Amino acid sequence: MTTIEILKAAKAACPVLAGLTEEEKNLALDSMADSLEAETETILKANGLDVEAAKDKISSVMIDRLALTGARIKGMAEGIREVAGLPDPAGKVLKRIEKENGLIIEKTAVPMGVVAIIYESRPNVTSDAAALALKSGNVCVLRSGKEAFRSANAIVEALRKGLKKRGLPEELVNLVQDTSRESAKELMVADGLVDLLIPRGGPGLIRSCVENASVPCIQTGTGICHIYVDRAADQQQALAILENAKASRPSVCNAAEVCLIHREIAGEFLPKLRKKLQDCRKEAGKTPVELKLDETAAGIIEGSRAEEGDFHREFLDYVLAVKVVDSVEEAIAHIAAHSTGHSEAILTEDPEAAKKFTLQVDSAAVYVNASTRFTDGGEFGLGCEMGISTQKLHARGPMGLEELTTYKYIIRGNGQIRE
Amino acid sequence: MTTIEILKAAKAACPVLAGLTEEEKNLALDSMADSLEAETETILKANGLDVEAAKDKISSVMIDRLALTGARIKGMAEGIREVAGLPDPAGKVLKRIEKENGLIIEKTAVPMGVVAIIYESRPNVTSDAAALALKSGNVCVLRSGKEAFRSANAIVEALRKGLKKRGLPEELVNLVQDTSRESAKELMVADGLVDLLIPRGGPGLIRSCVENASVPCIQTGTGICHIYVDRAADQQQALAILENAKASRPSVCNAAEVCLIHREIAGEFLPKLRKKLQDCRKEAGKTPVELKLDETAAGIIEGSRAEEGDFHREFLDYVLAVKVVDSVEEAIAHIAAHSTGHSEAILTEDPEAAKKFTLQVDSAAVYVNASTRFTDGGEFGLGCEMGISTQKLHARGPMGLEELTTYKYIIRGNGQIRE
Repeated sequence: MTTIEILKAAKAACPVLAGLTEEEKNLALDSMADSLEAETETILKANGLDVEAAKDKISSVMIDRLALTGARIKGMAEGIREVAGLPDPAGKVLKRIEKENGLIIEKTAVPMGVVAIIYESRPNVTSDAAALALKSGNVCVLRSGKEAFRSANAIVEALRKGLKKRGLPEELVNLVQDTSRESAKELMVADGLVDLLIPRGGPGLIRSCVENASVPCIQTGTGICHIYVDRAADQQQALAILENAKASRPSVCNAAEVCLIHREIAGEFLPKLRKKLQDCRKEAGKTPVELKLDETAAGIIEGSRAEEGDFHREFLDYVLAVKVVDSVEEAIAHIAAHSTGHSEAILTEDPEAAKKFTLQVDSAAVYVNASTRFTDGGEFGLGCEMGISTQKLHARGPMGLEELTTYKYIIRGNGQIRE
Repeated sequence: MTTIEILKAAKAACPVLAGLTEEEKNLALDSMADSLEAETETILKANGLDVEAAKDKISSVMIDRLALTGARIKGMAEGIREVAGLPDPAGKVLKRIEKENGLIIEKTAVPMGVVAIIYESRPNVTSDAAALALKSGNVCVLRSGKEAFRSANAIVEALRKGLKKRGLPEELVNLVQDTSRESAKELMVADGLVDLLIPRGGPGLIRSCVENASVPCIQTGTGICHIYVDRAADQQQALAILENAKASRPSVCNAAEVCLIHREIAGEFLPKLRKKLQDCRKEAGKTPVELKLDETAAGIIEGSRAEEGDFHREFLDYVLAVKVVDSVEEAIAHIAAHSTGHSEAILTEDPEAAKKFTLQVDSAAVYVNASTRFTDGGEFGLGCEMGISTQKLHARGPMGLEELTTYKYIIRGNGQIRE
């Protein structure tokens, strides 16, 4: 089927899904999870072909993301069952007004309709996204990266078998069969067929969506996260937070990429920071975190010199850019000019500085004295996560099931007319 | 100043506005209202020039929308004072989570930042939009239609005088000085400077925004509203509702444009409908509502024949397209293919038909047995209205102050790091 044919079939299936009860949706999810486990062999075989084909083309970190095992497939099935256990956001009455004339107005959460998701090489995104979409009443159209296509296709086939067993149309979960750039563009401009597009990927994909998409779109996941160490910071605390934010898992979007530090304490703090980011890696037998230093920082500690581009880059690696600033105001201005709007932190014992920072920094998550690594659907109490929105419209920060719904006003009367 | 210069000044003024307390914002609004009244003479003079210049170019209905009087300016000032009385949405904690590790996560409503509004010839939109933006903590950049530019400029100058009196920067309320199409396009692609774009105008403007805008945008106001008269309708009630929805104020977006009618009752109901829509206008000494009939309806009553385009058109006039359908399913399918997603109604005493209609019709407001004319910020309890969103992302239906905010997560800790 062409991408447009798939979208039309998806759109046509929306009323079926919107008409299911929560229990029916949960049974469908359980059946999908069972089917995924039952098809383990088939999925592993497809995944093996993907891994084999990708071996010389992508890094070993990416190969690790791509490769499946029986245990990983079991984990994916468990993930689907967990989604079944989350509360159903659709149908919830968000506000109810009873007018004097007897009209009853109910602002009611409803599914978006067709949710399209463009992602890259992690096969587990296929089952996660399908489960979250289904639970929230949305028909999903998934568009996997080329490297993971065989795996994604085998997973979707398994999920569809699960739907079929429950007597439901396979078109509730769909995979675009074309992995060329063209198919991503088709999704971006499928006005009337795509109710929400979620690109999950690098800055190139996000930028392409912003520039080309005429369908509603939520930007996700690019995180140039800043940690500002104020002159009034608790420095021991600051060292622990920076280690956690940079080095605990640098490949994720809530990892810190930039440390801004107040000039007054730079001379004292930077040597300690350098030592900390060396030691923590030494314990693991690895090379230390690379520091990219601005001119002032380079006058205090050793490290490579930062180029201007380094303050606009999501390293996703053991690399930290460091810049010395004169004030909290300068830190805020630097963040305004360089941030992707994901997560930023101020480390300070000064309530005035903290207040200014939380008020003026315009990002999804703004921290005082904590690691940016907490920006996550699970940590924020959403129970799951479809992605982390870095835009302000509709959803900001971690997106759970509620964020995959819109609302409509349902108004019931008995003949009311307006004066 | 060029449009980009205005946008940069607006962006720079955001922290000032975001830092004001509710009381400070209310005092600013009162001062703006006072100043508007004080400048009545200047505004009327500018408006006179607009009206004079537009006389031969636009219809008398449009001239009436454009023309101001002392009383209308007083009304605009009252409107600003009413907005001051509405609750402030910014700063409200929407959700609060206290984690076991001591982290406190607050999902907090915050202003969008810079809100740009493109509108047409009603000068009162200038003061309404400025007041709603300011109360919700947003700096507004207004872009008036060419015909109303002198009026809008005089109004904005008056509002800025009011701001100045309170010691606030004039840049909290801005008017684009260029009324060419180019300036509208500039707003659509001012990435990083416009946080929300609200086009208020005809389908051409909305379409242009959907196609060209790379900034976040909310489509508003185009309403091809349908009323479906089911076979189980109370016909007397249906006549009253159709008269109200079509003829009480046809120039507004919540007026009905299309009547769909079940085949089983068409023969009985259509002659009554025709008479009703003649009589109601006759009482006012006006020509009757024009009916544009599909083939089946034309076999039952007199009227002009509808062309296919008539079912895609917002008449905004005493014109109603009429189509006979075989079932509620056919009505739903027709609406899915032709609606702008604004407001639709089913008139029926059959709860099953009503349930199917409210579940499957994908519009901002879905009515059972009431007039579509109720879709309005005031009627829906929002206290005001910036426009009526016909999209699903962020805000749907009437947009009040809350819909002009986004949120951010503010997380306070004392050194927490993630395991």
